[in-house]
Amino acid sequence: MSAAVIKYYRGMGRWEPNARGRLEQAAMELFIERGFEHTTVAEIAKRAGLTERTFFRYFADKREVLFAGAGTLQEFFVSTVASAPDSAAPIDAVAAALEAAGALLQERREGARQRQAVIAAHAELRERELIKLASLASALAGALRRRGVTEPAASLAAEAGIAVFRIAFERWISETSQPDLPQLIRESLDELKAVTAGK
Amino acid sequence: MSAAVIKYYRGMGRWEPNARGRLEQAAMELFIERGFEHTTVAEIAKRAGLTERTFFRYFADKREVLFAGAGTLQEFFVSTVASAPDSAAPIDAVAAALEAAGALLQERREGARQRQAVIAAHAELRERELIKLASLASALAGALRRRGVTEPAASLAAEAGIAVFRIAFERWISETSQPDLPQLIRESLDELKAVTAGK
Repeated sequence: MSAAVIKYYRGMGRWEPNARGRLEQAAMELFIERGFEHTTVAEIAKRAGLTERTFFRYFADKREVLFAGAGTLQEFFVSTVASAPDSAAPIDAVAAALEAAGALLQERREGARQRQAVIAAHAELRERELIKLASLASALAGALRRRGVTEPAASLAAEAGIAVFRIAFERWISETSQPDLPQLIRESLDELKAVTAGK
Repeated sequence: MSAAVIKYYRGMGRWEPNARGRLEQAAMELFIERGFEHTTVAEIAKRAGLTERTFFRYFADKREVLFAGAGTLQEFFVSTVASAPDSAAPIDAVAAALEAAGALLQERREGARQRQAVIAAHAELRERELIKLASLASALAGALRRRGVTEPAASLAAEAGIAVFRIAFERWISETSQPDLPQLIRESLDELKAVTAGK
């Protein structure tokens, strides 16, 4: 974007450099300092050096700051499953998607830990997280069906995949060492394979 | 209970024959006739020939009429897992619990279908159902840990088990023939085993 265009958008109040990222960081700081329920949108905007109007261009409400990334994760899962080789078994297509998402999250462990701490402290946010996970499983099953996987295999592979992801994720954020999320995902999937094989 | 005692309790307004069952049936009829959101506790009590006060002795609110059975199902899962032979692999203990619960539900297909139709029509109830399933998985994992199963195997077996149960349940209530729920559970579990084995 040219400097003139940037100046134009700034003049219109329609563009701020990295507004989304600044709002996310400000929100997380305030959720941790004051608690989710004692933080207002006005305070988040102020901390980010932006207006409330700018906040609402990016997020419907303060809760959505925590869940806006879910859509990105879902698209990432779906496109990775779609691009798996035709010869890949359903569980391998799912494993590829989980590991790729794990590699993406690996870079953001501190943010993920903070987000999880805020969610764990509020029943309303835990419920929203369950809904998000159910949507992820549903999207993943849809991506498998588009590869020709029939039901109930598509839904079972997707649900099992999300369970593996969630359990690996919990281990990743709770361990004090710096564990590798894609590695934990592989281990959890191997464990699921052993468990379902009756071991 | 002697006739005199029954009369005493009736006089005290503390006992009504099968009050719980009558309230459940009245609530389901009204939810289907008028919709969940247009049904009041007063109407449920009236249809059941009971007072609102009696309603609140059994249920906290009208939503709980739909979810009160979840606690029973959970206890049933947990006790079946606990009583599985010591030699049973974790997935077999889970399978025994799912099939036993399936046999129990098999007798109540029409009620289960009606309940599911009401839940499917309301986002708030679908969320509550997700929370119930997450609690079931968590209780099942706890029962496995008490058998000496370590983590993450306990949580993975429990989550996979609940996914199998949910998917078999959906097939059971959506099929027009009179399918056998325990049989559908066995088939779904076999399908999960095939999927995780990379088939």
